[in-house]
Amino acid sequence: MVSKLEKFKQLMAELTDLNRANALAGWDQQVYMPRGGAEDRGHVLAALAGIAHEKFTSEEMGKLLDELVPEAKQMDPESDDACLILRTAHDYAKQTKVPTEKVAEFARATTMAEVAWEKAREENNFKLFQDELQHIVELRQEYAEYFKPYDHIYDPLLDDFEPGLKTKEVQAIFGKLRPQQVELLKKIAAKPVIDDSFLHVAYPEQGQWDFGVDVITRFGFDWNRGRQDKSVHPFTTSFGIGDARITTRFDAERAASALFSTMHEGGHAMYEQGISRTLARTPLATGASMAVHESQSRLWENIVGRSLSFWKFFYPRLQKAFPSQLAGVTLEQYYRGINKVEPSFIRTEADEATYNLHIMLRLELEIALLEGSLQVKDLSEAWNTRMKDYLGIIPPNDTLGVLQDVHWSSGLMGYFPTYALGNLISAQVWEKVQKDIPTVEQQFEVGKFDELLGWLRKNIHQYGAKFEPQVLVKRVTGTGIDPEPYMRYLTKKYTEIYHL
Amino acid sequence: MVSKLEKFKQLMAELTDLNRANALAGWDQQVYMPRGGAEDRGHVLAALAGIAHEKFTSEEMGKLLDELVPEAKQMDPESDDACLILRTAHDYAKQTKVPTEKVAEFARATTMAEVAWEKAREENNFKLFQDELQHIVELRQEYAEYFKPYDHIYDPLLDDFEPGLKTKEVQAIFGKLRPQQVELLKKIAAKPVIDDSFLHVAYPEQGQWDFGVDVITRFGFDWNRGRQDKSVHPFTTSFGIGDARITTRFDAERAASALFSTMHEGGHAMYEQGISRTLARTPLATGASMAVHESQSRLWENIVGRSLSFWKFFYPRLQKAFPSQLAGVTLEQYYRGINKVEPSFIRTEADEATYNLHIMLRLELEIALLEGSLQVKDLSEAWNTRMKDYLGIIPPNDTLGVLQDVHWSSGLMGYFPTYALGNLISAQVWEKVQKDIPTVEQQFEVGKFDELLGWLRKNIHQYGAKFEPQVLVKRVTGTGIDPEPYMRYLTKKYTEIYHL
Repeated sequence: MVSKLEKFKQLMAELTDLNRANALAGWDQQVYMPRGGAEDRGHVLAALAGIAHEKFTSEEMGKLLDELVPEAKQMDPESDDACLILRTAHDYAKQTKVPTEKVAEFARATTMAEVAWEKAREENNFKLFQDELQHIVELRQEYAEYFKPYDHIYDPLLDDFEPGLKTKEVQAIFGKLRPQQVELLKKIAAKPVIDDSFLHVAYPEQGQWDFGVDVITRFGFDWNRGRQDKSVHPFTTSFGIGDARITTRFDAERAASALFSTMHEGGHAMYEQGISRTLARTPLATGASMAVHESQSRLWENIVGRSLSFWKFFYPRLQKAFPSQLAGVTLEQYYRGINKVEPSFIRTEADEATYNLHIMLRLELEIALLEGSLQVKDLSEAWNTRMKDYLGIIPPNDTLGVLQDVHWSSGLMGYFPTYALGNLISAQVWEKVQKDIPTVEQQFEVGKFDELLGWLRKNIHQYGAKFEPQVLVKRVTGTGIDPEPYMRYLTKKYTEIYHL
Repeated sequence: MVSKLEKFKQLMAELTDLNRANALAGWDQQVYMPRGGAEDRGHVLAALAGIAHEKFTSEEMGKLLDELVPEAKQMDPESDDACLILRTAHDYAKQTKVPTEKVAEFARATTMAEVAWEKAREENNFKLFQDELQHIVELRQEYAEYFKPYDHIYDPLLDDFEPGLKTKEVQAIFGKLRPQQVELLKKIAAKPVIDDSFLHVAYPEQGQWDFGVDVITRFGFDWNRGRQDKSVHPFTTSFGIGDARITTRFDAERAASALFSTMHEGGHAMYEQGISRTLARTPLATGASMAVHESQSRLWENIVGRSLSFWKFFYPRLQKAFPSQLAGVTLEQYYRGINKVEPSFIRTEADEATYNLHIMLRLELEIALLEGSLQVKDLSEAWNTRMKDYLGIIPPNDTLGVLQDVHWSSGLMGYFPTYALGNLISAQVWEKVQKDIPTVEQQFEVGKFDELLGWLRKNIHQYGAKFEPQVLVKRVTGTGIDPEPYMRYLTKKYTEIYHL
């Protein structure tokens, strides 16, 4: 006799397996698949998504959940089983609203869109991506309709990445944040421009690769349970706690790009690697939300990776790896160079003071597309107009503008705001870390990161997606998502660097 | 209203998608997966195989086939639909005999066995693989039981790779072949040993890779619909007609190894790439059988790739790529060197005159294991004893002996004989090609292979698995599988090389 709970867990394990297979097919599509494989791959992704959706939304699952949810409410609320049942019940309620064939259609559409997006980038021409993006927008609008009534058409999309968060809440947080970031930017703009010319010379790719690998190895990235490859747009994916993969890309003339990208994706992957093995083969074996995930990547990339303490250890090594490129550049100059504030075209390359403005731009465009107040055919122009308004610069071409991110081609609308929220959470976490480990920055100076990683594993990673993101943030930091720690962090850092 | 035929084809398309996902998970496991991913990957492979088996053996499928088979018998027997229905009905009858949970258990067992096999190879110790292999043998014995009554316990396994062929038929073919091969070997052994020392010096890996890529590109391998990676054991896999992948491995001191392996796997992949697009997303989008598949790889690797005509074109290029290694080596010397006959340990490195003896050894061991007359714990010793009997040499360690092939760890028992049968078919096909394209060998001399590839596509590749292997062989060559053309080919070639 298999108990209801066992039966339920078996079903969830099989679903997790299917989703892992889907993730692998997606990874391969972006990393190694030859172009000729796109059509069949689209079918594979659609079939896997369709079968998973069908199994998840089955009557059998509904009945099991109906019986298990009351039991779960009697269990220890922090037990794996209670968390799994209640989280699944929440997802079930959401997913049963969407027909299986729509899920499959969306998977097919995104596969074709990703191919079109890559071609459009190569030819620097948004028009080549336009029809596929139009199709994506329509399918997302249709998706939102299944969740009526809603306060805002964008709410159901946002909820997929940040469960429970509303569009108006994000707008409120961003509303508090924006004037402070703009004021800081103005102060910085009044100061002399920092010289970072040494970052814009040729750095051989292999040297960049090796240095990035050295850094994340010291962070604690486990190579027996992960790997790094190259792709057009860097990303992290996981096929289980024992196999978390990152990708990077190289720009011979921007050495900082690949390095910080590797630290960023490494931060995501270490989160996945740090999840308790007791959650394996469950949907809880992932991050609590996109924003919490991003808080980990941004912590390693920026708060650690762009700190002076970090470079006190690593800069001599970097100079050794690139002696001609960094000849005569002092640690202080290098540190100021990698923290130079300057409006730029590419989100992933943006400094910490301008980054969130890139996000606000995307959020507004996504909302306008979904509301129908902006047409896809006008998107490239709208993008450029907003870039002028927000950052004072206009991209010279679509690849440096509207085509720069993979997200829309992958159908990930509602995802972008989580990047900025992740920045905010990273600073909240960092204030707590500094209290708990007063020597943490001195540790960086000798290349020691295990106490920080241990703290993150203990307080965040091990739980996977057991807790709702707001619950976890409050549990760790004592408050909800709050922009003030991030502003304190930025102000302190740039006051020192720019002598504000 | 969707017709029964359409419904059936939709189901088969989805099943094909699932099998493609499974193939991808298997490819990644052997090519890029970190070791820590093995446990979860085993579950993924098991889940995909289990779901596919369950869907394929469903009552719905059974009913559809019951209704469609009589209709198919009224259709043009060469139509895609008729072939798909009848082939599927044959497979359905087979697969419905095996319970779904047994299929999943077998997938899990092979995943664990592959990890153990790799570890055993690294440590040169068969014992580390023994328990997992024992489990595989037991599961294969159990599998055969589902097909009782059989003439021989090995029949159901053989049939999975070579539909319709019986153990006694293979034994009869091998029985005719063996004395002729042995006699030829004896004649060769009486002649002076060929000097191939120039093949056993260091050839840089990148140069080997580039040369192999150049060769298969000229053969007609389509890089927009395929790729090459590295793995422990070279193999070919396909995720659709638009994505056929090969792997290779390098031995710095055996330049010939990677090159001929690339031609071999390239031959397999070009077969997959040549299948008619009308068969996409059906189980007919693959080779007719393992032996027919092998006939294509061996044709390109040996009949083309080890011919004097081929090297008249490629040898000057090879000399240019490896000037120091091949300084003073004439075309004639090189040609004789790569065709040197010499008993050796590794099947995939064996020359054409000894290769089939490696197969006969494996076939006998597999049969003995399944019959129970040989225990897994005694396998290493039995291997070495037979190597002494057949080839007069004893492997100095297990990695050069019983651990050399991936097949048993992957559960592929019944597969080995198809390699030797493939050799026989390749020579049958080649006799026909020479009749139809009298200038074919002169074409090789100028690096022209498109007429040969076109002939193979037209007569073999395009049909995929539409025809049963014996039907296809007869259609192409006019007879069933026949060892005589292969013996004529070997005798002519070695009479010239060894002046017999």
